[in-house]
Amino acid sequence: MTAAAASVPDPLNTATLTITCPDRGGIVASVSQFLHNHGANIIHSDQHSTDPAGGTFFMRMEFYLDGLDLSRDGFERAFSNVVAAPFQMEWKLASRAEPKRMAILVSKYDHCFLDLLWRKRRGELNVTIPLIISNHEDLRRDAEMFDIPFHIVPVNKENKAEAEAEQVRLLREADAEFVVLARYMQILSGEFLRGFGRPVINIHHSFLPAFIGANPYRAAFNRGVKLIGATSHYVTEELDAGPIIAQDVIPVTHRETPDTLMRLGRDVERQVLARAVKAHVEDRVLVHGNKTVVF
Amino acid sequence: MTAAAASVPDPLNTATLTITCPDRGGIVASVSQFLHNHGANIIHSDQHSTDPAGGTFFMRMEFYLDGLDLSRDGFERAFSNVVAAPFQMEWKLASRAEPKRMAILVSKYDHCFLDLLWRKRRGELNVTIPLIISNHEDLRRDAEMFDIPFHIVPVNKENKAEAEAEQVRLLREADAEFVVLARYMQILSGEFLRGFGRPVINIHHSFLPAFIGANPYRAAFNRGVKLIGATSHYVTEELDAGPIIAQDVIPVTHRETPDTLMRLGRDVERQVLARAVKAHVEDRVLVHGNKTVVF
Amino acid sequence: MTAAAASVPDPLNTATLTITCPDRGGIVASVSQFLHNHGANIIHSDQHSTDPAGGTFFMRMEFYLDGLDLSRDGFERAFSNVVAAPFQMEWKLASRAEPKRMAILVSKYDHCFLDLLWRKRRGELNVTIPLIISNHEDLRRDAEMFDIPFHIVPVNKENKAEAEAEQVRLLREADAEFVVLARYMQILSGEFLRGFGRPVINIHHSFLPAFIGANPYRAAFNRGVKLIGATSHYVTEELDAGPIIAQDVIPVTHRETPDTLMRLGRDVERQVLARAVKAHVEDRVLVHGNKTVVF
Amino acid sequence: MTAAAASVPDPLNTATLTITCPDRGGIVASVSQFLHNHGANIIHSDQHSTDPAGGTFFMRMEFYLDGLDLSRDGFERAFSNVVAAPFQMEWKLASRAEPKRMAILVSKYDHCFLDLLWRKRRGELNVTIPLIISNHEDLRRDAEMFDIPFHIVPVNKENKAEAEAEQVRLLREADAEFVVLARYMQILSGEFLRGFGRPVINIHHSFLPAFIGANPYRAAFNRGVKLIGATSHYVTEELDAGPIIAQDVIPVTHRETPDTLMRLGRDVERQVLARAVKAHVEDRVLVHGNKTVVF
Repeated sequence: MTAAAASVPDPLNTATLTITCPDRGGIVASVSQFLHNHGANIIHSDQHSTDPAGGTFFMRMEFYLDGLDLSRDGFERAFSNVVAAPFQMEWKLASRAEPKRMAILVSKYDHCFLDLLWRKRRGELNVTIPLIISNHEDLRRDAEMFDIPFHIVPVNKENKAEAEAEQVRLLREADAEFVVLARYMQILSGEFLRGFGRPVINIHHSFLPAFIGANPYRAAFNRGVKLIGATSHYVTEELDAGPIIAQDVIPVTHRETPDTLMRLGRDVERQVLARAVKAHVEDRVLVHGNKTVVF
Repeated sequence: MTAAAASVPDPLNTATLTITCPDRGGIVASVSQFLHNHGANIIHSDQHSTDPAGGTFFMRMEFYLDGLDLSRDGFERAFSNVVAAPFQMEWKLASRAEPKRMAILVSKYDHCFLDLLWRKRRGELNVTIPLIISNHEDLRRDAEMFDIPFHIVPVNKENKAEAEAEQVRLLREADAEFVVLARYMQILSGEFLRGFGRPVINIHHSFLPAFIGANPYRAAFNRGVKLIGATSHYVTEELDAGPIIAQDVIPVTHRETPDTLMRLGRDVERQVLARAVKAHVEDRVLVHGNKTVVF
Repeated sequence: MTAAAASVPDPLNTATLTITCPDRGGIVASVSQFLHNHGANIIHSDQHSTDPAGGTFFMRMEFYLDGLDLSRDGFERAFSNVVAAPFQMEWKLASRAEPKRMAILVSKYDHCFLDLLWRKRRGELNVTIPLIISNHEDLRRDAEMFDIPFHIVPVNKENKAEAEAEQVRLLREADAEFVVLARYMQILSGEFLRGFGRPVINIHHSFLPAFIGANPYRAAFNRGVKLIGATSHYVTEELDAGPIIAQDVIPVTHRETPDTLMRLGRDVERQVLARAVKAHVEDRVLVHGNKTVVF
Repeated sequence: MTAAAASVPDPLNTATLTITCPDRGGIVASVSQFLHNHGANIIHSDQHSTDPAGGTFFMRMEFYLDGLDLSRDGFERAFSNVVAAPFQMEWKLASRAEPKRMAILVSKYDHCFLDLLWRKRRGELNVTIPLIISNHEDLRRDAEMFDIPFHIVPVNKENKAEAEAEQVRLLREADAEFVVLARYMQILSGEFLRGFGRPVINIHHSFLPAFIGANPYRAAFNRGVKLIGATSHYVTEELDAGPIIAQDVIPVTHRETPDTLMRLGRDVERQVLARAVKAHVEDRVLVHGNKTVVF
């Protein structure tokens, strides 16, 4: 890397390698040796093992591509044969230069929605946003302010199946790599999840597993809790039960009403969702069963 | 109060008046007028109304006794006739000079237990501790270090009823005004609660209503939550469902195990329990149905 | 208030009375008696005394106007004579129905700025925004998106005095009741503060009094602190030394750079500024010397 | 490690390797290869680089010793020649089976002191405590309760030099590996620090760099801050200016006095100090100039 050091490496010209495999000795050695041999200078490296004696091993390595002596295809072929196969790795290579394509589903609440658009504009989220889908007109002007295509797909009891089919069609047409539900007020069916077949990130306005389902702020008020929270998780068929990516809470008192809880909660919701989306976008989240490893 | 101001009032010579009644106009005026007329100089005052239009009204007033022109009995009689009766108040007068008598029930875990003893010794909690009851010998030496009577009442499936009867007998004999369950690992029956008939404060090692019942840290680990917490509440017959006094959480990651969660949780448990006990001791907690007002 | 209870009171038809005066007995009694006598139903009441024996007394009372038997002028006249004068009170009456006129000074950073505009639109801040003044063009489009007049007043070493005079002229012309510096990157002179003569709220990107002045994130990085913060305060002639309204921090690690600290800090800055502005707008902040009482 | 997996590895039989060296390609590869070649199964690994292009590189690796095919001396010799030398590493090997020898200096405050003794007893801190030194008698009984030698070394203006010499003599005699100042109310001179020549950890009761020096709670009260904190750092000759290991804060309001701030602060102080000591004990803290890397 003295070479790489001589010329300042391009911060945009980096890649992230994420790995999941059965834990065994020699994994770190093999991966780091492979990267070093091919001139990839490691920037960050993180790892986790559910159980060093025969558990599952997770690794995330971020490295500069400048010094790399392989094409992307070359890298994938070589790594697959030399390292991945012998260790039975599930692995993924993501390049910083190729922003992920993020779609947003939203209804009427604007706080999580605007926060994501603003962060993208600020350069906090390395994504492109090919489309926004809503079941209401309310947020069209905001979407247009950010010059993002805004599609209306009305949803009601009668047309739910068709509506979801249309949503999936739009998402696939735009080649969305993942979807964020920014307080989208409809429950997605298994058909939608299977039809889209890619990650869907939701923000739920409670500290799950407390207050699953509708009106968590009302439920929190009725129970008289002294803190309220928000949880961002990957969506699975079971409501509010998917792998949790991020959670946070704020203290509240007896003075709050369901309405003021909702207002206070908005600040936690947008922060937690943004943290989860950023982690996903930077390939920091590895799913393991119904849990996550967040590097 | 110029008089009271002339001589520096004795900080120990204060009293706290707590009131619950149907909300109506004129309550604050009447109470403050009464105190002023009798030379009681208000130090702190706090109030809350569930609904200014016909809800329940709560008030806590702390005042100096120096300038008071009434005996305690005189005060109670006069206040009862002049103020409490017309407003249908439930009310209580507590004097700082009479520390509450706090009993502790404990099993083997020492963290909440020692924390309470330390705080009492340090003067943070205005209580006396007439007795400690445990179902194990483990903490006897700690109790003796603080010169507090330590009673063993073994509990098992067979003798539960007799054991609780014995506990109630000891508590009443010692005239305990309230009980703190400092990680006492037995569920108290309705018979105990009715038999003792005074407040019982528990610390549960989760952010209720999440993870009610046994092994919340294991449950938190299995669910993959990103924060763990503790909840202190008044004990009712329904398990972990009583009015919540205090809650807090700390962030955790995928690196924790049920054991490390338990270790991290100890710090939250003792802080939350101490906060709840202190609030109770200072008459800051007013129970309303299954919720609390914490001034 | 039985009358007020009969008809549901209009939540918008409320007023807030804030009082500062030398502490003496009878204040609460007199004020609450006065309000009760004139049919004002108290919603919230909070008070504080720096020293019950001869210190300064602060009070905030929020009440419904529905039942009030006085006009606003009538109230002010009566209260002034009957209550305020005898107790040498400084006091203010603010009506919920008259939103405060808030001006914003901003430069290039958009995070605090947009956060305030969003909250206003969402109904979280009871204000009107008659004008925005900036020394740069960058945020014009955002301002226009919210249909708020956007004035450019360029500032440089040479024209500082004239520029500030122009800013004051615009603020007075728009009758701005207070100014928020939403990361406005110029230091305001005493001339400006005296010329405008009304409250100016600033957000400083450090937990004051640490890292006063320029580049606090760089200073925090150099010191190797494990948390960074933000402080919102009223502006005085002494830089970053005015009365603090709100502060918060977030934990950081050795992994952060001055750039990432800046990014992380944005979330704290906008939250802290919004909290301070909301407290000011709701007349919850009483200044006492160089400190604040925040009810 | 299939072997190591067959038999469950002994959690006590682990070692931690910490490394600091100029950043270059191939470090991770070489270290992990070395450990793998000698049968050391890595449990945790963490690394940091101040600048991947020519900065300083830090690494901490924790591994099982069971499978290791080298004696400790053998390991040190081999690692030194094969890995450390070529990369110009400063490095250290610490074995879990050899608890660090921690000395405590304390005065009259018991909260940090008791918290450390309790955590050691609970097994949270892998240390032995060969001695406690105090300049007051107050905490002798507590020390004896935990069966730890308690030495009195009175300190005053006149005898400061001799007193410090005696402290150093006691510390060296007991072969203390590091010292914790658990609210020890004397400033240690450069002579002491050089004489002892090993790490000294202090807890300062403010969020440094705010409120350096004496009476930070009084200073915090005077400034009217809305949060108070604590900072644990390595002691250097410059007062309160050493490398920060851990910090935390809690929110406070205008209602607090210097006394109540002190009481509230005690909870933060003991938590922050315990966190810092635990990190030091587990070799998670690497000092870099006046800053720390905390893995």
